[in-house]
Amino acid sequence: MIFKLHPQLAKDSLHLADLNLCQLRLINDRRFYWLILVPKVANAGEVTDLSDTNYQQLWQEVRLLSQVIKPLTQADKLNIATLGNRVAQLHLHLIARFTKDAAWPDPVWGVGTAEPYSLEKVKDLAMELKNACSNISNPLPISRKIN
Amino acid sequence: MIFKLHPQLAKDSLHLADLNLCQLRLINDRRFYWLILVPKVANAGEVTDLSDTNYQQLWQEVRLLSQVIKPLTQADKLNIATLGNRVAQLHLHLIARFTKDAAWPDPVWGVGTAEPYSLEKVKDLAMELKNACSNISNPLPISRKIN
Repeated sequence: MIFKLHPQLAKDSLHLADLNLCQLRLINDRRFYWLILVPKVANAGEVTDLSDTNYQQLWQEVRLLSQVIKPLTQADKLNIATLGNRVAQLHLHLIARFTKDAAWPDPVWGVGTAEPYSLEKVKDLAMELKNACSNISNPLPISRKIN
Repeated sequence: MIFKLHPQLAKDSLHLADLNLCQLRLINDRRFYWLILVPKVANAGEVTDLSDTNYQQLWQEVRLLSQVIKPLTQADKLNIATLGNRVAQLHLHLIARFTKDAAWPDPVWGVGTAEPYSLEKVKDLAMELKNACSNISNPLPISRKIN
């Protein structure tokens, strides 16, 4: 079996980059700075479906991205979660939250209606994130262009 | 500074055990099988406030508990999250979800009103969890009695 992105995740989010383990995507809702990481592993539904090595790699990618986006966005709080109650494919949410955002202090899931990004804005955001990642000492391999 | 449990977490949950890094607690709401792990580290609000070693230890404790409670509870899904929008002290939710539970398929936060456990039920749950942990090859140091 090879990894194939779940159609619901493909529909709801935009491809930003490929990390070593995960596909990094942006939920297409400009109300939030909402990333998802999808481990490129077939048939994974729970984090415990990952090998020890991949499990550690997942949390390493989360750590590095967290260290980048918190100062980059000046977020008030990071929300990190893997739920998967509706979409069975393992995916992890990494969301920069703000006390003035559309859901604060509640979680973001199921709040209101998504407001799609413009393509221009996504390109800017992807470039900004890539540059921020390349400025840290242990950078993530974010090299691929958005599609 | 020494670690001190946030009063809101103390109010909402019951102490089950002390792991190497985290205090393991049970949200006092018998509608859900809802654990929280609170790293015993002063002034931590984000996972990125943890040292590399503690960060890895946190996710190791989550992994081992996940491997125990999924088969133990026969859960349909695990939900793992650190939000902290309302309580600033770093704490991680580990919830065994069921397609018939009171919030499915939504997240559990903010749903209805908590239904407290009986002390007897908490003791049973703590003992069951301790036994399940002692049966795995790389057990967590769950030895302390509930208080």
